[in-house]
Amino acid sequence: MFSVTVRDHMLIAHSLRGEVFGPAQRLHGATYVVDATFRRASLDADGIVVDIGRAAEALRAVMSELGYRNLDDEPELAGVNTTTEALAKLVADRIADRVRGEGLDGITVTLRESHVAWASYERPL
Amino acid sequence: MFSVTVRDHMLIAHSLRGEVFGPAQRLHGATYVVDATFRRASLDADGIVVDIGRAAEALRAVMSELGYRNLDDEPELAGVNTTTEALAKLVADRIADRVRGEGLDGITVTLRESHVAWASYERPL
Amino acid sequence: MFSVTVRDHMLIAHSLRGEVFGPAQRLHGATYVVDATFRRASLDADGIVVDIGRAAEALRAVMSELGYRNLDDEPELAGVNTTTEALAKLVADRIADRVRGEGLDGITVTLRESHVAWASYERPL
Amino acid sequence: MFSVTVRDHMLIAHSLRGEVFGPAQRLHGATYVVDATFRRASLDADGIVVDIGRAAEALRAVMSELGYRNLDDEPELAGVNTTTEALAKLVADRIADRVRGEGLDGITVTLRESHVAWASYERPL
Amino acid sequence: MFSVTVRDHMLIAHSLRGEVFGPAQRLHGATYVVDATFRRASLDADGIVVDIGRAAEALRAVMSELGYRNLDDEPELAGVNTTTEALAKLVADRIADRVRGEGLDGITVTLRESHVAWASYERPL
Amino acid sequence: MFSVTVRDHMLIAHSLRGEVFGPAQRLHGATYVVDATFRRASLDADGIVVDIGRAAEALRAVMSELGYRNLDDEPELAGVNTTTEALAKLVADRIADRVRGEGLDGITVTLRESHVAWASYERPL
Repeated sequence: MFSVTVRDHMLIAHSLRGEVFGPAQRLHGATYVVDATFRRASLDADGIVVDIGRAAEALRAVMSELGYRNLDDEPELAGVNTTTEALAKLVADRIADRVRGEGLDGITVTLRESHVAWASYERPL
Repeated sequence: MFSVTVRDHMLIAHSLRGEVFGPAQRLHGATYVVDATFRRASLDADGIVVDIGRAAEALRAVMSELGYRNLDDEPELAGVNTTTEALAKLVADRIADRVRGEGLDGITVTLRESHVAWASYERPL
Repeated sequence: MFSVTVRDHMLIAHSLRGEVFGPAQRLHGATYVVDATFRRASLDADGIVVDIGRAAEALRAVMSELGYRNLDDEPELAGVNTTTEALAKLVADRIADRVRGEGLDGITVTLRESHVAWASYERPL
Repeated sequence: MFSVTVRDHMLIAHSLRGEVFGPAQRLHGATYVVDATFRRASLDADGIVVDIGRAAEALRAVMSELGYRNLDDEPELAGVNTTTEALAKLVADRIADRVRGEGLDGITVTLRESHVAWASYERPL
Repeated sequence: MFSVTVRDHMLIAHSLRGEVFGPAQRLHGATYVVDATFRRASLDADGIVVDIGRAAEALRAVMSELGYRNLDDEPELAGVNTTTEALAKLVADRIADRVRGEGLDGITVTLRESHVAWASYERPL
Repeated sequence: MFSVTVRDHMLIAHSLRGEVFGPAQRLHGATYVVDATFRRASLDADGIVVDIGRAAEALRAVMSELGYRNLDDEPELAGVNTTTEALAKLVADRIADRVRGEGLDGITVTLRESHVAWASYERPL
């Protein structure tokens, strides 16, 4: 199995709902350094999983939709508890929509919220 | 599949038994930067795999049991060759004991012994 | 010259005032991974610049004052444009207040806002 | 499942064939920071997956065969489009040839071409 | 003293002249992960050293002039031994030309050629 | 001012003397990831501060003298409290002895004891 990963980031504000989150129930924010991994069982005719420039553009586009925003105020995220795990799935699903039909087998997205904590979501394509 | 990872570290002394280890048969030590990854097929009612604070506490507790010690002198490690691989399993098993019954599917523990070498152990829960 | 550095982090929300900031004028947030460096021309009687545990506590205390907050709403930051540079100075000055009189010669604080951008402030003590 | 990873690097020149590569069709080069991961279901009699020194030597040997060369001029790579993905497979296959018969279950090789892009190839042994 | 740093990278081919370089006298290449640090004694009216977006653009422009090229064939580098040190100065001088007159006190450029070696050049502005 | 840095590491056991060290008064150990920086005002005839291979050898030699040892038992360290700061100076002084007379202006050595703590010593040459 082959994979290619590209890294980008976004800066967002949000708050989390639920007592388990303690002080993170207050409005705060995070830099998410985001790794998007594209998997493919065999390489295409150019010898690649996906063009690294094309993969970076797909990730950049999703970062631009979410970055420099207060996620609590985004209509399309209404009712979503924007935990790192949930955002990893949201980013993976949005990237999947952009690269469908290109022969990929799966996608994994990792959001690093600090040097000591991160979350991932892995899905087939 | 979702996962959450938290990072901590411990400083220990030990020696390794077996000619394959060369100079590492002498008493020496290591900093292990330890990543504990918790896996879960779907998120819980709060939208998380495990609370990051709770995960960090479980890892911290295990680090405190082992850190600032000479592992060669620990009665409960008598007869164990404390290689990085064996310690990865030991840490994973101890964390598993602390988080059982919380709906997790698996745990992976990685011990980084330097910037150029690390070992992992992956297990279901 | 000797130095000791400890690392911690904080998650905050804020917005920036000024056209130069473009989309960062909107309410957003950041994870700041913060490195606090303590400098001293010669070591103390214990052979250290500052105890690493003591340095980590001073940094942790300042992180707790600022973290999990919307800096736009903090009364003591009213009128401050909380750029990464300005926050580096704020953190350095607050740590300085906590370690004065311990023989240190200077402090540098670096705030990493992503894997591709960071800011520092260096001052004598 | 256990694994051990060692890291090394190589500096090479090459060019890529195919319009998708844009400016990378010109002769350029890269530093590949290479992680070789060795997997094994259970530890051997010494309590290891593979000796870290032995693993590092196998990786070093493969790096020496490729490093400080223009891959476009290597007879044994004639006809190969030396993408990061293809090189990950090449390195994994060469390491596999060096460690066969030592009870390993699989190998993964990751080539990091920058701080924002990398590729992997995973195979059984 | 304040500073702001931005990171980018370039992929180049080159060879080095001089017996001291051993195998690096052959045509090979490198990824340089490049950190450009901008220094300023006091912040400007917006509370910054330099806008991070503006700094990133200046660095990006210089990377584009050099990247995806064989430096041995660049007319403007004829006669230059393109060591990591010499390239650090070249990049710093080119960035300096782009940001002169903006109140900066100095620039430092670091080129990381691998995870175990890097070079820097520091200059006033 | 130019500089070149090379990275290596050593694994040691030791204990620290003094109540300030708390649990680190017990025999334990550490991996020190060590960065040795060589400074020079202008480049030599080959266009370098120091050959990276030569610098790496000097650092490797010093790592070999100290690594895989219990520093408490080393006769030449008798009476030395082997704090990270003191070891940074020891390593810098030993490297200085090996590169004297090569036109260098100074050396800085940084010992990283974990992902969240490190110490440096800077000296002229």
